[in-house]
Amino acid sequence: MANKKKLDDIESGETIVGRSITLGEWHVMTFAGLTGDFYPLHTDAEFAAGSPFGGRIAHGLLTFVVGAGFLANELADYDVVAALGFGATRFTAPVKFGDTITPNGTVTEITPKDSRGVVAFDIDITNQRGETVVTSSMQVMIRA
Amino acid sequence: MANKKKLDDIESGETIVGRSITLGEWHVMTFAGLTGDFYPLHTDAEFAAGSPFGGRIAHGLLTFVVGAGFLANELADYDVVAALGFGATRFTAPVKFGDTITPNGTVTEITPKDSRGVVAFDIDITNQRGETVVTSSMQVMIRA
Repeated sequence: MANKKKLDDIESGETIVGRSITLGEWHVMTFAGLTGDFYPLHTDAEFAAGSPFGGRIAHGLLTFVVGAGFLANELADYDVVAALGFGATRFTAPVKFGDTITPNGTVTEITPKDSRGVVAFDIDITNQRGETVVTSSMQVMIRA
Repeated sequence: MANKKKLDDIESGETIVGRSITLGEWHVMTFAGLTGDFYPLHTDAEFAAGSPFGGRIAHGLLTFVVGAGFLANELADYDVVAALGFGATRFTAPVKFGDTITPNGTVTEITPKDSRGVVAFDIDITNQRGETVVTSSMQVMIRA
């Protein structure tokens, strides 16, 4: 727990990259059960085959929370007080079963306040072809 | 599938209320497994007992996605084309194991465009005491 990165150790523009993961049936069905969102584009292969996507895709929020969670794990190196929230979240491309996502975080703003400060990260989740599938941002409070 | 609510049937200020659900260990452990986020405030009762919350709390994003999913289910009455994204999401109060959440959506803006339009909803997720635990917003494309 010692030697964690403090506010002063963080620079605007620095990036963190989360572990990559392949999304598939398990993720989609687990998320459907958790959220009650069984929209057929995610859970009905016959329906999805006739959609513009040609097959089932992951819920946008599923891709977002997996990416955000994997990024949060990278924050274990930082002296984090709390995650404050997330900015606007956009689903920019579909994630099909078998696609592999990677979350990227870039520091955009550091706002010191007393013995701590808020660090804003842009979140960009990409697929195995380097295409962005989700954009968002997060605000994290870190000790000074 | 007939008689679904179209864009013209929606009025600014109208509200939808999603089903309520009690969050507990199953939700938190399922979400931890899905996202890789095993931060001890959520998964370690001993650690959490010593925190300002006095016990384990749900991940903020867990409360958000369950609330958003339960609201999305209410949109089955509308002629929805796609969910476009979510606005800034804030975690305003902790959700403890055994707390019951209810998602509320209020139409704030209707922007017609060609044969469809974007409907913006404010999202307010409350607990059993009526306290707001998550605020967010969502943009949904609906046929005219």
